[in-house]
Amino acid sequence: MFSGAQISLYPMTDDFVGVITSALGALDPYRNQLRIETDDISTLLVGPLEVLFPAMRDLFSAAARSGKHCVLSATISRGCPGEPDDAICDSFHFEGPVAPLAERQATALAAVQDAPDIGVFSVAQLSLYVLGQGNHMDEIYGCIDFLKQSGTFEKSKHFATKLNGDTGALFATLEQAFCRFGSPQGHVAIDLTVSANSPSAR
Amino acid sequence: MFSGAQISLYPMTDDFVGVITSALGALDPYRNQLRIETDDISTLLVGPLEVLFPAMRDLFSAAARSGKHCVLSATISRGCPGEPDDAICDSFHFEGPVAPLAERQATALAAVQDAPDIGVFSVAQLSLYVLGQGNHMDEIYGCIDFLKQSGTFEKSKHFATKLNGDTGALFATLEQAFCRFGSPQGHVAIDLTVSANSPSAR
Repeated sequence: MFSGAQISLYPMTDDFVGVITSALGALDPYRNQLRIETDDISTLLVGPLEVLFPAMRDLFSAAARSGKHCVLSATISRGCPGEPDDAICDSFHFEGPVAPLAERQATALAAVQDAPDIGVFSVAQLSLYVLGQGNHMDEIYGCIDFLKQSGTFEKSKHFATKLNGDTGALFATLEQAFCRFGSPQGHVAIDLTVSANSPSAR
Repeated sequence: MFSGAQISLYPMTDDFVGVITSALGALDPYRNQLRIETDDISTLLVGPLEVLFPAMRDLFSAAARSGKHCVLSATISRGCPGEPDDAICDSFHFEGPVAPLAERQATALAAVQDAPDIGVFSVAQLSLYVLGQGNHMDEIYGCIDFLKQSGTFEKSKHFATKLNGDTGALFATLEQAFCRFGSPQGHVAIDLTVSANSPSAR
C-alpha cells in the first residue's frame, strides 16, 4: 500500500509566505511519521492515513487562525497501482475483512462523533474517486449517504459534495470517507478543497 | 453527456477580491456557451470541453497578468453516471469511432502544436482519473506518454504529473489529456492546479 497527498496552502494575503511559514509548525508532531517533499506547486505527504488527515487538519487550522481567507487544496491517494508499497504507509484502517456497506457507514459515523473540537469553522468540498472496479458508483453513493448523515453535510453539487463544520469533525469525516469506501487494497483518490474566512456569502 | 468543472481562483494578495473581479471579464466571450454558478468555495462551469478549457485559460491568464502569485484549482469531470445529459455540453471531441491509442496520442500532440501563444508562463499539476473500467491504468499510462511528448512536461510526481509552459500550450495539453483518453462516453475526471508567479524555486 502507498498512501499520501499532494497538498497546497493558499492564504489570500500579501503575507502569504509568513502565514504558511507560521502554520508549518503544526506539522511538527507528525514529521517522524511522514515523508515530506516540497516544490513550487505542492507539498507531498506520504504516510498512514490516520496521521495524514490530522496533520492536514492541524496545518490548515493553524493557517486559518491567522484570520486571513485561507484554502487548503489536496490530492489524496491510496493504492495507486503505479506506486510502490511503502512500510511508512502501514495503516490500521485496512486490517481485517471488509464489512458490509451499512456496517462501514455506522463505523464511520461513530468516528466522526468522537472527533476532537478544534475551534476553527471551515467549509470543505470533496470529490471521491474509486478506480479500477466496475461498481465504482455503488461505493461512491454509499459514501455520499454517510456524508449526508455525518453532521457536516451542506449540499450536493455537480462533481462534488460540500461540507461545513469544525475542522475536527470535517477532517474526521474526510478520513472516514477516504478509508471506509472502495476496496481496502483498491485505488481511491479524493480531490479536496477546504476554505476558511471567505468574505463570500455561503 | 454532462461535462464541466468546479473552479476556484486564489490570488495570494490582500486585494484578492479585486484581482478575481478584474479577471472575470476574461470569461465574457464564453458566457453564452457556459452555465455558470458561484458559491463561497467554487464556481461551476458547465459546457462543452472545447469552450471550458479556453475559458479557464483566459480567466487564469488574466489573473496571472496582475503579477501576483495566483493559483487556479479545478475539478473537471465528464460522463459522470450521476449527472444528467445536457445539450449545452455537446462537444465535437467525442464524435466518430474511437481511434487506437497511438493515433489519439498523435492527434493530441498536433493540437498542442497548434495552441495559441498567450504570453503567460505557468506551472500545472494534474491527476487524471478514468473511472468505471478495469483497464483504467492503460489509458492513464497512455495519457502520461502523451504528456511526456507534449513539450510541456516537467516531471512525474507521486499522484500527479507536473507541466510548465505558456498557458496556451498548457491548457491545450490539459484539454487533450482530458478528451482523448478514457472512453468517449466514460467517466473521466481531472484534479488540476495551475500556478503563476510563485516566489518558490521551481
